[in-house]
Amino acid sequence: MSAPTTTPIPYTAEELDAVAYDANGLVPAIIQELGTNQVLMVGWMNEESLRKTLETGRTWFWSRSRHEYWCKGETSGDRQYVREAFYDCDADVLLFKVEQEGRGACHTGERSCFFRAFGSGATPGRV
Amino acid sequence: MSAPTTTPIPYTAEELDAVAYDANGLVPAIIQELGTNQVLMVGWMNEESLRKTLETGRTWFWSRSRHEYWCKGETSGDRQYVREAFYDCDADVLLFKVEQEGRGACHTGERSCFFRAFGSGATPGRV
Repeated sequence: MSAPTTTPIPYTAEELDAVAYDANGLVPAIIQELGTNQVLMVGWMNEESLRKTLETGRTWFWSRSRHEYWCKGETSGDRQYVREAFYDCDADVLLFKVEQEGRGACHTGERSCFFRAFGSGATPGRV
Repeated sequence: MSAPTTTPIPYTAEELDAVAYDANGLVPAIIQELGTNQVLMVGWMNEESLRKTLETGRTWFWSRSRHEYWCKGETSGDRQYVREAFYDCDADVLLFKVEQEGRGACHTGERSCFFRAFGSGATPGRV
């Protein structure tokens, strides 16, 4: 199977300007799998990482702990190819539909970061 | 058609304690439609609104602008009945799968708050 094609997402300057960032200049970005609509992960973007995401067609986030940009899958190979990009009615949450390459989105090896349900008996806390 | 049944979601004290809130005591909560997996909206919860959501089986949020709790659909009738509740690997994002009653989740009348795509020609900004 060949690797997915990377495609830039069109946008206007007005759309980019309209995004409402929080006090830290960040906005949550939901990453959803194209087709199944499974929510894979949530990352944080600033204006520059949003622009890079749209222009490169790959997901770029801002790491709040490491204070650096990171492109999903650049180290792990679990790349995300953006196919559709949305913003909500308050323009303060973003949503990207992607093709997920590799094992999945979560660093634990799970396909989705949301693999633990309340009341399921899973060990709570950060993993 | 009869109204959906309200069902509490089981949880443990350890799960509730494990949730990692931000500096304002809040965590983003993704509301996803059961079945279609469409992302309907994102709201913010503090510990008390999370507890109320799990115990009542309805979605309770904390309004950052009005500084008050609100139960989705209590005014509009567009109620959300929680069927599954998840937390992510960092325990700092929540995800709820709901049955959506009424028109949908967005105050604009759209089913989902994410009805505008980048590059679509929609008028950007808060609506």
